[in-house]
Amino acid sequence: MKVDLNCDLGEAFGNYSFGGDNQIIPLITSANIACGFHAGDQHVMNDTIKLAKDNGIGIGAHPGLPDLQGFGRRNMDLSPEEVYDIVVYQLGALNGFCRIHDVKINHVKPHGALYQMGARDKVIAHAIAKAVYDFDPTLIYVGLSNTLLISEAQALGLSTASEVFADRRYEDDGQLVSRKEADALITNTDEAIKQVINMVKFQKVITKNNNTIDIKADTICVHGDGAHAIEFVTQIREQLTKEGISITRLGG
Amino acid sequence: MKVDLNCDLGEAFGNYSFGGDNQIIPLITSANIACGFHAGDQHVMNDTIKLAKDNGIGIGAHPGLPDLQGFGRRNMDLSPEEVYDIVVYQLGALNGFCRIHDVKINHVKPHGALYQMGARDKVIAHAIAKAVYDFDPTLIYVGLSNTLLISEAQALGLSTASEVFADRRYEDDGQLVSRKEADALITNTDEAIKQVINMVKFQKVITKNNNTIDIKADTICVHGDGAHAIEFVTQIREQLTKEGISITRLGG
Amino acid sequence: MKVDLNCDLGEAFGNYSFGGDNQIIPLITSANIACGFHAGDQHVMNDTIKLAKDNGIGIGAHPGLPDLQGFGRRNMDLSPEEVYDIVVYQLGALNGFCRIHDVKINHVKPHGALYQMGARDKVIAHAIAKAVYDFDPTLIYVGLSNTLLISEAQALGLSTASEVFADRRYEDDGQLVSRKEADALITNTDEAIKQVINMVKFQKVITKNNNTIDIKADTICVHGDGAHAIEFVTQIREQLTKEGISITRLGG
Amino acid sequence: MKVDLNCDLGEAFGNYSFGGDNQIIPLITSANIACGFHAGDQHVMNDTIKLAKDNGIGIGAHPGLPDLQGFGRRNMDLSPEEVYDIVVYQLGALNGFCRIHDVKINHVKPHGALYQMGARDKVIAHAIAKAVYDFDPTLIYVGLSNTLLISEAQALGLSTASEVFADRRYEDDGQLVSRKEADALITNTDEAIKQVINMVKFQKVITKNNNTIDIKADTICVHGDGAHAIEFVTQIREQLTKEGISITRLGG
Repeated sequence: MKVDLNCDLGEAFGNYSFGGDNQIIPLITSANIACGFHAGDQHVMNDTIKLAKDNGIGIGAHPGLPDLQGFGRRNMDLSPEEVYDIVVYQLGALNGFCRIHDVKINHVKPHGALYQMGARDKVIAHAIAKAVYDFDPTLIYVGLSNTLLISEAQALGLSTASEVFADRRYEDDGQLVSRKEADALITNTDEAIKQVINMVKFQKVITKNNNTIDIKADTICVHGDGAHAIEFVTQIREQLTKEGISITRLGG
Repeated sequence: MKVDLNCDLGEAFGNYSFGGDNQIIPLITSANIACGFHAGDQHVMNDTIKLAKDNGIGIGAHPGLPDLQGFGRRNMDLSPEEVYDIVVYQLGALNGFCRIHDVKINHVKPHGALYQMGARDKVIAHAIAKAVYDFDPTLIYVGLSNTLLISEAQALGLSTASEVFADRRYEDDGQLVSRKEADALITNTDEAIKQVINMVKFQKVITKNNNTIDIKADTICVHGDGAHAIEFVTQIREQLTKEGISITRLGG
Repeated sequence: MKVDLNCDLGEAFGNYSFGGDNQIIPLITSANIACGFHAGDQHVMNDTIKLAKDNGIGIGAHPGLPDLQGFGRRNMDLSPEEVYDIVVYQLGALNGFCRIHDVKINHVKPHGALYQMGARDKVIAHAIAKAVYDFDPTLIYVGLSNTLLISEAQALGLSTASEVFADRRYEDDGQLVSRKEADALITNTDEAIKQVINMVKFQKVITKNNNTIDIKADTICVHGDGAHAIEFVTQIREQLTKEGISITRLGG
Repeated sequence: MKVDLNCDLGEAFGNYSFGGDNQIIPLITSANIACGFHAGDQHVMNDTIKLAKDNGIGIGAHPGLPDLQGFGRRNMDLSPEEVYDIVVYQLGALNGFCRIHDVKINHVKPHGALYQMGARDKVIAHAIAKAVYDFDPTLIYVGLSNTLLISEAQALGLSTASEVFADRRYEDDGQLVSRKEADALITNTDEAIKQVINMVKFQKVITKNNNTIDIKADTICVHGDGAHAIEFVTQIREQLTKEGISITRLGG
C-alpha cells in the first residue's frame, strides 16, 4: 500500500515571497509548480525546477487561470478552447525550464478555480485533459478523486492519480465543500490525519453530512504555507508510515 | 545564391487584430511568432502555428520583453538572469503549441527592444543566446547582421542567420538607425529594393553617412502590416528572383 | 421627446487600434470611455477625454473587469468588495484625465460582463452602484433598462438612465439575449431601426419570443466599430429626427 | 526645527502580503501609497487609505512604473508623454479611494525607477512634475534632495519636500549610490542615525568618497519591511526628539 504526497510550490512572484518551499520539500514526493498565470514567474519557475530536481521529487505542472490578482481562485467563464490553450501554453513554459535542467514533467494538476471548474463541468474537464494529452500523453494527470477531472482524463487514455485532501471536508457527491462555507476546512489535526488514513487504507471518507462514501486516494494534497503546515505534514508522514503505507512519488 | 524572407506573425491579442498574417504568409519563408509577452496570446499562438504549418513555412519563436502596452519596444533594464529566464519561458510556451501540432521550432529571433539591447550589449546578447542554446542547441539563431547578437550566439556554437532590413537605414557600425530619428526608415520602394539586392548579392550596404560597409544577409526582415506591405514584399520577391537569388527558408 | 445616443470609445490599447472613434463622435451625444482594465490605456484615455471635450459630448466612465485578454466580456467570480474596489479605482483613474482637461464625468456605464453580471445579480448590482455613489452621488448611472442595474442604483438615490440596444434581441424578462445564442443580434438595419423607434416612442419592445414588453429608453447604445456602424448610426439619427425625437445628451 | 518621516505603504498585492504596515504606521507622519502599477491593488489601496486616515498620517500617492514583476525598480525607456500619463492615471486612481473615505492626497512621491530616472533626467523629471501640477497644483512634491526632481517641480510652482535617506550612501553629486553597488546601503544603525541627524540638523551629508556636501532634509525615508525596520525607526525617532527636532507631517 502506497500513496504520494503532493504540494503546490513556486508560488512566489517578483518581489513577493510565498510559502516555505525549502522546508516542505524534504517531506513530499511530488511538487505542483505554478506556471506564471496565477502565481510564479520565470525566475521562480527556474529556481523551483532546480530545487525539485536537486531533491529528487516528482515535477508537476500546475496550470491555472490567467488571474494573478485572484491567485487563480476566481472562476472565469472561459470557453473550452481558451482553457485548452492556456493549459498548453503553461505546460510548454514549464517544460522550457525542465529542458534547461534536463528533467521531465512527471504529472499535471490543474490549479484552484480551474481544478474546481473541471471537477464539476464535463466540457472544461475534457478541455484540460485534452491539452495535457495532446502535449504529452504519458503525463500522469492529477485530479479530485471521484470527479469529472479523473473520468474525462481516463476517457482520453491518460494515466490518472486520484487526489484527496487531508484538511478539506467532502460533500456527499465527492466534491470538496466550498471554501466559501464555514466548515470547509478541518482544523483539528487528529481529525485530518484520521481522514487521511481512512481514505488511503480503506478508500472511504465521511462527508460533512456524516455519510460514508468511496474514495480513491493515490495522492494527498498538503501545504507548505501556514502556521502549522510543516508540523502537520510531518505528522501525516509518521502516521502513514506507522500504518505501513509507503510514501512514494506518483508513477514510482 | 539564396536568402530567407522572415516576417513577424501572430501579433494579435485578445479582441485586437494586427497585421495581415494570411496575406503575407504566401510571400515569406520564415515566421517569427510572438510568444505572449509583447504580443500574441495563447489562442493566437495556437492559430499561428497551425497557419505556418499548413503553409509549410519555417516556424520561429519571437520572444520579447514583458511589455504588452509598449509592444516590447521600450528598453527595460533587466538583469541577464531575467533575460535568460524570459527567453526560456517563451521558447517553452511556443514549443507547447508546436508539440500539439507536431511541428518543430526552426529558428529564434529576439523581438524589438530585446533585439536592440542584444545588438549593443554583450551581456544581454550572451544571456539571450545562452537561453536558446540551453533550450535547444540545434535552433537557428537570427540576429542583426554584424552585431553582438550574432557573435555571442556563434561563440556558444549556435548556427546563426544574419538579418538585414530592406526598409531601415544603417549606421556606420552596422547598427540600425534608431526609429526615434527622422531618417530611420527608407520609404522609397526602389531605394529599399536596391538596398536589399546590394546586401544579398554583394554583401554591402550604404550607411546613412554614405559610407559602404560589409554586411552578411542570410535573411531579410519584411512586414505584413502597413499600407503597402504586401505590394512591397511582392516586389522584393520579383527582384530577387530576377537577380537569380533563390528564396529559401532558413536551414533549407 | 428625447433620447441620448451613447457609444463605447477609447478601446484601443498600446500598439493596437480599435474602432473608429473620430468617425462616430459627431454622431453621438455620450461617450463611455474605457478605463484601462478591459481596454484603453493611459495614453488612450488622455486622448479620448480630450476628443470628447473638443466635440462637446458627455463624458462617461466605462469600468470593466480586469481582463484585457477577454475584453472584459468573460464573467469572473468577484466578491462584491472586489467589484466595488475595481469600480472606484477606474472612476478615479478616468477622473484624473478629466481633471487635467478641466472637464467632469457626466455618467457611468459598467462594461461587458460586469454590466451583464449586474443586470442579473442584485449583490453585484448594488456593489457597482455603491461605488459610483460613494465616488460621486451626482453621476448619472446608465444600466440595462428593466434590470437590477437600474433598480439598485435608484435604491441608493442615483439618477439613472435606462439603456436600450438597437441591434440586440430581448428576452421576455427584459434581459438581452446572450451573445452566445445564434439570434442575439439584429442584423437587418430596418428591423433594428424599427425596434429603436418603438422603444423610444412607445416604450415597448418585441422579445425574441414575439411578446411585447414595456421598456424605458433614455439612451441608445450604438457602436463605432464594424463594417456598417457609421451608416447605421446615421440612419438611426435620421429616423429619430423624422419622428420628432430630439437627440440630447444625458442630463442635458 | 522639524522633519517628516515617510514610508512606503500598501505594497501588498492580491494573495501576497508585504511589509508590516500596521507596525510602522504609529512611527511615521506620511505614507506613500502604491497605486497598482508596481505594487498594491484596488483592495489594498482601499484598506491602506482607511488605515492612514484612521491613524491621522499624511496620505501620499506613490506612482510607479507599470512593472509589477520588477516592483517598479527596473528602468523602462518611456517617453515623457507616457510618464505623464501613467502619473495622472495613478494619482486619479488613488484619489478615487480618497474620495470614498473623504480624505485628501497630501503629497506625491515617485517610486523606485521612476524616482531614480527623474532624479537624473530633466525631461522625465519635468513630465512627472507636470502631471502632478496639472492634477492638483496644491500637492506637495517629494523628491530626492539636490536633484532634478526638486528643481523641475519648483520650476512649475509646486511646493516641494526634499527627501533624504537614513540608510543609503550618497554620491558627491547628491545622487544615491546605486543599489547595484556593494556599498549602497548603510547597515550600521549608529552610522545611519548619525547621517540622519547630520542631514536634518546641519544640512550636510558625507558622501561615499568622504566629501561633505550640502543637503536639504524635509522628510526622511524609512522602511516598514526588513528584520530590524521597526527598531531602526524607533531609534531614529528617539534621536531626533533628543536633538530637539520635531517630527511633523509634510505641510503640517
